[in-house]
Amino acid sequence: MTEIALFGAGRIGRIHAGNLSAQAGLRLRYVVDVNPAAAAELAAAHGAGAADVEQALADPTVAAVVIAASTATHAELISRAARAGKAIFCEKPVASDLDGAQACAEAVASAGVPCMIGFQRRFDPTFAALKRRLDVGEIGAPEVVVLTSRDPGPPPLDYLKQSGGVFKDMLIHDFDVCRWLVADEIVEIYATGACLSDGARAAGDLDTAAVTLRSRSGRLCTINTSRHAAYGYDQRIEVLGSAGMLQAGNHRPTEVTASLADAVRADVPEPFFLERYRRAYAIEMAHFAEVLAGRSQPTPSLNDGIRALELAELATRSWREGRVLSCAI
Amino acid sequence: MTEIALFGAGRIGRIHAGNLSAQAGLRLRYVVDVNPAAAAELAAAHGAGAADVEQALADPTVAAVVIAASTATHAELISRAARAGKAIFCEKPVASDLDGAQACAEAVASAGVPCMIGFQRRFDPTFAALKRRLDVGEIGAPEVVVLTSRDPGPPPLDYLKQSGGVFKDMLIHDFDVCRWLVADEIVEIYATGACLSDGARAAGDLDTAAVTLRSRSGRLCTINTSRHAAYGYDQRIEVLGSAGMLQAGNHRPTEVTASLADAVRADVPEPFFLERYRRAYAIEMAHFAEVLAGRSQPTPSLNDGIRALELAELATRSWREGRVLSCAI
Amino acid sequence: MTEIALFGAGRIGRIHAGNLSAQAGLRLRYVVDVNPAAAAELAAAHGAGAADVEQALADPTVAAVVIAASTATHAELISRAARAGKAIFCEKPVASDLDGAQACAEAVASAGVPCMIGFQRRFDPTFAALKRRLDVGEIGAPEVVVLTSRDPGPPPLDYLKQSGGVFKDMLIHDFDVCRWLVADEIVEIYATGACLSDGARAAGDLDTAAVTLRSRSGRLCTINTSRHAAYGYDQRIEVLGSAGMLQAGNHRPTEVTASLADAVRADVPEPFFLERYRRAYAIEMAHFAEVLAGRSQPTPSLNDGIRALELAELATRSWREGRVLSCAI
Amino acid sequence: MTEIALFGAGRIGRIHAGNLSAQAGLRLRYVVDVNPAAAAELAAAHGAGAADVEQALADPTVAAVVIAASTATHAELISRAARAGKAIFCEKPVASDLDGAQACAEAVASAGVPCMIGFQRRFDPTFAALKRRLDVGEIGAPEVVVLTSRDPGPPPLDYLKQSGGVFKDMLIHDFDVCRWLVADEIVEIYATGACLSDGARAAGDLDTAAVTLRSRSGRLCTINTSRHAAYGYDQRIEVLGSAGMLQAGNHRPTEVTASLADAVRADVPEPFFLERYRRAYAIEMAHFAEVLAGRSQPTPSLNDGIRALELAELATRSWREGRVLSCAI
Repeated sequence: MTEIALFGAGRIGRIHAGNLSAQAGLRLRYVVDVNPAAAAELAAAHGAGAADVEQALADPTVAAVVIAASTATHAELISRAARAGKAIFCEKPVASDLDGAQACAEAVASAGVPCMIGFQRRFDPTFAALKRRLDVGEIGAPEVVVLTSRDPGPPPLDYLKQSGGVFKDMLIHDFDVCRWLVADEIVEIYATGACLSDGARAAGDLDTAAVTLRSRSGRLCTINTSRHAAYGYDQRIEVLGSAGMLQAGNHRPTEVTASLADAVRADVPEPFFLERYRRAYAIEMAHFAEVLAGRSQPTPSLNDGIRALELAELATRSWREGRVLSCAI
Repeated sequence: MTEIALFGAGRIGRIHAGNLSAQAGLRLRYVVDVNPAAAAELAAAHGAGAADVEQALADPTVAAVVIAASTATHAELISRAARAGKAIFCEKPVASDLDGAQACAEAVASAGVPCMIGFQRRFDPTFAALKRRLDVGEIGAPEVVVLTSRDPGPPPLDYLKQSGGVFKDMLIHDFDVCRWLVADEIVEIYATGACLSDGARAAGDLDTAAVTLRSRSGRLCTINTSRHAAYGYDQRIEVLGSAGMLQAGNHRPTEVTASLADAVRADVPEPFFLERYRRAYAIEMAHFAEVLAGRSQPTPSLNDGIRALELAELATRSWREGRVLSCAI
Repeated sequence: MTEIALFGAGRIGRIHAGNLSAQAGLRLRYVVDVNPAAAAELAAAHGAGAADVEQALADPTVAAVVIAASTATHAELISRAARAGKAIFCEKPVASDLDGAQACAEAVASAGVPCMIGFQRRFDPTFAALKRRLDVGEIGAPEVVVLTSRDPGPPPLDYLKQSGGVFKDMLIHDFDVCRWLVADEIVEIYATGACLSDGARAAGDLDTAAVTLRSRSGRLCTINTSRHAAYGYDQRIEVLGSAGMLQAGNHRPTEVTASLADAVRADVPEPFFLERYRRAYAIEMAHFAEVLAGRSQPTPSLNDGIRALELAELATRSWREGRVLSCAI
Repeated sequence: MTEIALFGAGRIGRIHAGNLSAQAGLRLRYVVDVNPAAAAELAAAHGAGAADVEQALADPTVAAVVIAASTATHAELISRAARAGKAIFCEKPVASDLDGAQACAEAVASAGVPCMIGFQRRFDPTFAALKRRLDVGEIGAPEVVVLTSRDPGPPPLDYLKQSGGVFKDMLIHDFDVCRWLVADEIVEIYATGACLSDGARAAGDLDTAAVTLRSRSGRLCTINTSRHAAYGYDQRIEVLGSAGMLQAGNHRPTEVTASLADAVRADVPEPFFLERYRRAYAIEMAHFAEVLAGRSQPTPSLNDGIRALELAELATRSWREGRVLSCAI
């Protein structure tokens, strides 16, 4: 049994706790949270104990950590866990900014521990099947990637104000998917957008955006996003290749359609990420178990996490400065 | 130019007139109708003349007739046209009953003229593509055929009362499609149904029916029908074969979908047969032109028309007597 | 904690064991199987013990049984469990024949224990949503039900020979779904079919069948089935109502489509019942937990199980005798 | 009868000739082409005469011209037709460059004749339905427009070399659709792309491109294009609005699907613009007939043609200069 310490007992922490517990070979040992009651409750539900950071990292029986606490804590927790010799799974983003991420990378490199970043979309069965089929050449080389990434509704204003902006908070997943699918170095980025809602306006942020990325060999990726798609959580991928096109459509709660006098009606997509990516989260944790068992590489890697963060920062600058930016770094 | 006399200036007659006129090599010469004004108007629109039956059949420049008058007149018009040596296109059904149909068959055989029956569904691009793919073995041998055949709403009571019943009036098309796809001799038939509307009740008819047919080699066909599908004209074919399944879906007026808060909405099917089979009627007439030019066989043949009528009469008896009937004739 | 004894450690027994264990409030206490090693292994995986029937039923801490052993044992196990005062969940069919089922019903009635039959399709999210929408009147009253029920490939010949025939073995689920959706007394049934494969022939069974059922008020249901659909497990429902149509489509493993030079390709359906009804089995067991907690009725009931078995026997007779049968019993 | 002179007897000229002839109230009087034999043949097929430009414009019975000759001739023909007092229908683009287009605009304005530009996509039933539903507010205000516009294969190198580049030759239609749907002034444009094929490289052109446009009020439009979509002619529109999303999908030749062992296969889209927009061309000409009858405005107008050309030229510059351009003019 590999013992795990979980940092963060919120919504996403609870999902990881459940998936960890269901995983043969893994055992949840500690839950750590700034809210001790939340930690205790989640720990109890899985036969684990509540602890503070110090205690959890000091316990030599703990082989790995899962970091699902607030973004502001990621960088420090990664560095401390690395220094304590723990294997690391950390939710996106790696850090609030690139400097913090760079510091993590050094700590992880010098400790030589595996570190995997929680871009769960790569584990979604639909997206993973698309990627596999792309990799075996079903549509030839990728030429154009179109990502549609829309939330069903904006988060609360308090969240928006400290979110780091739509590119770092929401599109960071899409930047990772872009890199994963384009499979070539991104050399140019352009981002623009609009602020059509009161919340985003109050937070000085965008709620609607379009990003264009170009790779060294001329592959194009466009991402379009919105914080408020009235019909639900819209997560689609389209890849045009030299020999055809692969598309990943939305998942629906049921396969019922109703043919009525005015329209043929089908279900809207799964409501939000907890439902849409339920299986992705479980498969992701199974992959981390494989990493801990030495049977798989920690992918998406810490470097993947840093590159996505770079693109998010560049997109933010491109939008603010109103110009195309080179990504050569 | 092959000169044509058209019998019937009603809804379906006008469609044939338009398709005839658009056909290179055919020319509409006469329109005949019990309503002389209707005949004159349709004739004028296509540079033809109005005439009576005698006159049209007596004109030696007329090579062919298109019969789109009321069902009661079909048998006599076919026989007279055959005796006059004209090639014949006749709307379904061949006759009001099998005796009448048999008499036609003799007249046509002894005259040696081509005679084609207007089962236009065979010419629908979607249905024809399904048939072609079935014939080349894409799904192996057919094993189960499921036909869905539903009208958007019932005809007027006056029409219902003289229609000959749902099997002869409406399902005769489906019996032809069944024979065409099953491509084996039908040996057993069972029909049942219900009368759920006032109109059908007043006419002593069914408005909802299910028919099961079995062929000599064990191929099954089920047909389900309704006179009142609230969402429109529903015309689908499904063929299960030993190596897969072919399905022909409905045609929609547009390919627009709307994703709203409550549902993803697509168009209901084309409203009724004039829209759904517009292209089928044109292609059917082009096929008749090929027959007249000696380049194609008259298919569906008069015999096809008679066999479909037989099945419609057997279905009616099966329903009335509440039992399975053998089709051996 | 409610303690449960599970009879049967085969494929379906293992699914129930997993779902039981995941259910808050339920605890697997014993696993019973004719193969003691299989019982021991499954028991160990869930912290339960292996036992024989006697022992399991004699333990007063066991409040309920889950019967997933072979069909031949169902009737006796139900009766014995009832006499021992246990609540009962039993896989379909209730018994190998109606006499056996009737005996169970008496034992259950006189013991006054809850008894639920494992028609898991009623708990499938797609089918359950269709039923809910039908019940709230979204398409008015049901008029025509079309069930498509096809297996991806035939079972082994040994299984076929003792299966009781396609109607009892395979279509019993569809007879239950028919009764559930038609929601009216079935008064007439007609079944026909064909035997197109060597296996079915050797077993004296059908592998392709069509069944038509009519209810007292004139609602129609047709079921078409095959033991060998080349494209996978095909499980669809269509209900035509007075105000529209509801359809339940197949579930696919992923939502990927590929547009290639020759076709737009989508996934075939989930391969077989273990995948297609994975969620249905879990929800079914959660429902049984609700029954045990006294918060829900045992539905589908033992009576539902008996009525489906009656229809399966009538269908078998209708096919053998080649005639329409009345269901008045 | 309104008499029409047609300039251009090529592929698109023949389509307009057919649609003109089918239009009640219009009569094709002259066909003019640099190839007199082509003009004579097309004229003969429609009961018209061949003529030269002078002769056609000098005939006072000719009320209108349809210009479908090569792009290089558009500007001069528009100006001459305007000075001759003829109503004008001209294929896109208005002219090879903006100066030429501006000169046309002056000639048309001073002559006071109606002038309509052949952006036929506005008349496509699917696109027109989407626009109508957008206009009645079904999805609220438009926020994001995504246009997918891909050709099945590149034109010959000779054509490519004189085409004016992908933005003017191919995307000019999409710039018009963008303006039509965004319904707000475009203020910013960014275009990038790649050249992945030998032909485009030899022509110094792009074959893959992504364009982003932003309107004054913050509406975004992205266009992605390719000269070589292996699966056919891909023409889709997606509009995200404040209350939902409208999508216009591709049209398929048939509605057949095949479920085989490896995939469920549907038809690829209609092969190219002649098939995809067949009905659009007919409805467009019917609209021109309405304009000639004084019952409709000439829409898309000459100004629409000029604005689309402006966007095409700006896109070309944006790509060449690698920067975002303001559209304020």
